[in-house]
Amino acid sequence: MRPFVFINIASSVDGKISDERRRQLRISCDEDLRRVDRLRAESDAIMVGIGTVLADDPKLTVKSRELRMWRVKRGMPENPVRVVVDSRCRVPLYAKVLNDEAETIIAVSKLADSKKVDALRRRGIEIVVAGDSRVNLKALMEYLHDRGIRKVMVEGGGTLNYGLLREGLVDEIYVYYGNMIIGGSKSPTLVDGDSFDPPIRLELISVERLGGGVLTKWRVKTGFCHRASSRISSSKPALR
Amino acid sequence: MRPFVFINIASSVDGKISDERRRQLRISCDEDLRRVDRLRAESDAIMVGIGTVLADDPKLTVKSRELRMWRVKRGMPENPVRVVVDSRCRVPLYAKVLNDEAETIIAVSKLADSKKVDALRRRGIEIVVAGDSRVNLKALMEYLHDRGIRKVMVEGGGTLNYGLLREGLVDEIYVYYGNMIIGGSKSPTLVDGDSFDPPIRLELISVERLGGGVLTKWRVKTGFCHRASSRISSSKPALR
Repeated sequence: MRPFVFINIASSVDGKISDERRRQLRISCDEDLRRVDRLRAESDAIMVGIGTVLADDPKLTVKSRELRMWRVKRGMPENPVRVVVDSRCRVPLYAKVLNDEAETIIAVSKLADSKKVDALRRRGIEIVVAGDSRVNLKALMEYLHDRGIRKVMVEGGGTLNYGLLREGLVDEIYVYYGNMIIGGSKSPTLVDGDSFDPPIRLELISVERLGGGVLTKWRVKTGFCHRASSRISSSKPALR
Repeated sequence: MRPFVFINIASSVDGKISDERRRQLRISCDEDLRRVDRLRAESDAIMVGIGTVLADDPKLTVKSRELRMWRVKRGMPENPVRVVVDSRCRVPLYAKVLNDEAETIIAVSKLADSKKVDALRRRGIEIVVAGDSRVNLKALMEYLHDRGIRKVMVEGGGTLNYGLLREGLVDEIYVYYGNMIIGGSKSPTLVDGDSFDPPIRLELISVERLGGGVLTKWRVKTGFCHRASSRISSSKPALR
């Protein structure tokens, strides 16, 4: 079993999430940032790839005090669990995502440096080891489900989005197209990695104007060949 | 003076116009293809980059007989003029874009092979030489305007879109997001080249569901620093 997983991401009209220097650009409008905050508040976990942590150093917490209080009243922690997919355990020890405002899980592969892993553990960070050289995303999702996490919000970047889509681990994708063209054949896009053959089919849930841009919501079509089962029937990977 | 220029292009949700092998993928739905045909019929010229010709071998003609007749009744040729931006004159002599269903202009740079250029001229193809190693897009647009062309529809690819946007030669951009994810960090995107710093700002004209996807229309903001004048005040390039 795995949680419900959705990707939420802001993109330029041309599908870029940053420029070729991977600088953090403000693509969303205020209305969209409030929407993203509500989505975070409604989720059990916020997942990002290590590239996003290294480029943007996000806190991944709920910004609105009201929303945090809303969570507490419902018996939830103020903030969702933060999950960083970080095969080689490159997360800097001073990264904001490791602060004490929320729980943090770092998912690493067996290739990760054990000293770095131990240093994180000593700081009370939860470590999940899954996969030989890359994080086994299916196993990670199973682990999160076993841990009681039922709704995962993925906030990029393009490499993690690619991996999750390839493994059939994404239910819905919400894309906010900000009113700009970033351009660049080397700029990171919504979904990087290799191209899918055939493309992954989506179904449009809704589309609306939001601020200066457009919010689109899509459902990943089930029964699609890229959408394998999230269960691992054999060779359960090492989770510790 | 230059014509009104708009880009019309179909993209996956993640901003790709093809996969990493540059195969022609059907991104549009039938409704969108009819819309594109109407846009072509309303334009004086259809412009593409040589990459699109080499990858897709398009005819760039109006598909609907009714729309062609509509043009003829208004005193226009059945099809708009086709313009290929082809700095090194790589267009194959058997390319469909050179057939006799419409007039064709091949825009080349001074770097283009003169024998190939002559061969095209002998076939009655109009050649515009503008720019030393790359086609001078501003000069080309001036040439088209002088030739009576007032409305240019650009149908990609990402490299031509980039060049036109960089030179401030685009008034509007229409993007149809088809219901699919293509993925791939090396797949061609709506706007390739280098990234813009700062990004080019757009203004949303309209957004609507169309078939299984979403049609968005954007206006390129004027007064933007990337938007230089389309006039060339000095050193008029060689047009012959």
